Amino acid sequence: MTRAWAAGLDMGGTNIRCAAVSASGDVLLMEHGPSHASRQAAAVAENIAAQLTHLLDTARRRGLGSPRAIGVAVPGPLNVYSGTVMQAPHVGAWRGYSLRRKLEALIGRMVVVENDANAWALGECWRGAARGRRDVVLLTLGTGVGGGLIVGGKLVHGRSGMAGELGHVTVDPDGPRCDCGSNGCLESYASASGLRGLVEQRLGLSPGAPLPAQIIDSGGNFSVRGLSAQARRGDKLALEAFATAGYYLGIAIASFLNIFNPELVVIGGGVAGAIPYMRKTMMTQVRERAFTAIASQAKIVRAALGPRGGVVGAAYAALHPPTRS
Amino acid sequence: MTRAWAAGLDMGGTNIRCAAVSASGDVLLMEHGPSHASRQAAAVAENIAAQLTHLLDTARRRGLGSPRAIGVAVPGPLNVYSGTVMQAPHVGAWRGYSLRRKLEALIGRMVVVENDANAWALGECWRGAARGRRDVVLLTLGTGVGGGLIVGGKLVHGRSGMAGELGHVTVDPDGPRCDCGSNGCLESYASASGLRGLVEQRLGLSPGAPLPAQIIDSGGNFSVRGLSAQARRGDKLALEAFATAGYYLGIAIASFLNIFNPELVVIGGGVAGAIPYMRKTMMTQVRERAFTAIASQAKIVRAALGPRGGVVGAAYAALHPPTRS
Repeated sequence: MTRAWAAGLDMGGTNIRCAAVSASGDVLLMEHGPSHASRQAAAVAENIAAQLTHLLDTARRRGLGSPRAIGVAVPGPLNVYSGTVMQAPHVGAWRGYSLRRKLEALIGRMVVVENDANAWALGECWRGAARGRRDVVLLTLGTGVGGGLIVGGKLVHGRSGMAGELGHVTVDPDGPRCDCGSNGCLESYASASGLRGLVEQRLGLSPGAPLPAQIIDSGGNFSVRGLSAQARRGDKLALEAFATAGYYLGIAIASFLNIFNPELVVIGGGVAGAIPYMRKTMMTQVRERAFTAIASQAKIVRAALGPRGGVVGAAYAALHPPTRS
Repeated sequence: MTRAWAAGLDMGGTNIRCAAVSASGDVLLMEHGPSHASRQAAAVAENIAAQLTHLLDTARRRGLGSPRAIGVAVPGPLNVYSGTVMQAPHVGAWRGYSLRRKLEALIGRMVVVENDANAWALGECWRGAARGRRDVVLLTLGTGVGGGLIVGGKLVHGRSGMAGELGHVTVDPDGPRCDCGSNGCLESYASASGLRGLVEQRLGLSPGAPLPAQIIDSGGNFSVRGLSAQARRGDKLALEAFATAGYYLGIAIASFLNIFNPELVVIGGGVAGAIPYMRKTMMTQVRERAFTAIASQAKIVRAALGPRGGVVGAAYAALHPPTRS
């Protein structure tokens, strides 16, 4: 008898990760591929289906048999019941796109579609930093800021699965424009795009103008890793940008503490590596703004699953499909 | 056979409401009394116990028999499992006060203690504006701002029952001082004390200085009703204060929408009567800041239970005592 497992796919802006995950959360097999996120809506979905089909073939060849369920994690708010992606500006220009129906037609099997940060939160509760915790706020600090909420041991979906957009709470009503159309969102500060904006503002550059060589990567794009290296060297610009991001991150976390009274705030994503440079301003705001009785019960920790978070969580979502509560 | 019912008590800063509530949510009997909130911690609790005992006596005399359960709603964050009130500056100077234990000793029966806004949220879901709804954000705009969260049909308690402090999310990091010790909280604007501060600021008055006669009540205190009457007459000061409160209320509601994807936002409390003067700025911020796909699914409505919300909800909490989920 073959082992029970689920397929989990994590759709990023650049890469796709795709894994066979056992019913107890072990990654049995992992594959990678390009996400071709700038292609048209249907082509992006077809690429996802092809990656899944490839994983299923590999799994079969390795004697794993068929998956019990298939889960796909994608960025952007989506209706988790219908599998419709509402708004994913960076991926396939999806807007009200029936991703679930498309994937099911292509693969010929049921697919569960979940928001990527929600999936990550499920993964961290299953096998990561929040194992066994029942009240958890997860923040993913990447290109943007995502969120996943676990309340009483269950993922919060809200009316249609779009809950948890923690990157889009207002932390400063007069703050910079956000990709979502609002301004002064947490994402306008504590994300790669937010940090880039803070650097541009400090250098007096217009958005998108060329940046100093130390903070761009080999592809010419803004690099949070480069900015962290500058901060490590004591560069004032880098330290100020992280201090500002930490200040607003702390304001948002204080609000989340007062709203949720969680046991744990878990922070993941590429920008989380720079937390040492954000911690001081972040913690000052948490202490000044959250109820002491609440803050003293909550730990703020780094996510443990790293790049595996999305696929493990997508597999969990597939094995425990959302039901209208 | 007597009808099954629960006792629900709502502890306000000035008055106590106390009711016998049937198992289906009908108020069978209601009593009122002073809350003597400025007395010492134990004396405030003894007064609550006396009011409950009086209600139980009246109920017995009227042939209702004994209640199946007793619920008490109090302001301020509390540990709902131990019944310890963490911080209630305006009531009995409670700070880490074991209210539940004290009341149970005085009455000789089990008592469930719940936050007043949480109780109100339960009441609105049971018999009010949110009947049958499963994802609800309740805001109580009174002297301060309270909140109650229903997710998937269940009240959100968080780790120890202190979740839902929606009045203490930051809406402007540079905003005025809040009673909680932070600054720029929603409560600093969209509450009676917040509106008073906005009026003082516009008039250049120091906090607590005498206010114009039109906006004080017979007891010499700031009156939201008086400010509303001024707004109705077209008074610029009043209209501006409400416009500012509405602006920040809208910012907070937009964040709550993006966080919770609720079906309903329910607004109650004395200041809710002034929503007509806040609606324009409030709705502009909601439209500009919340995801359209989320905002279009949510209604913002007035609470339906009014002064009965707390007692009905306290009775509900007593009949469905919180369990660590």
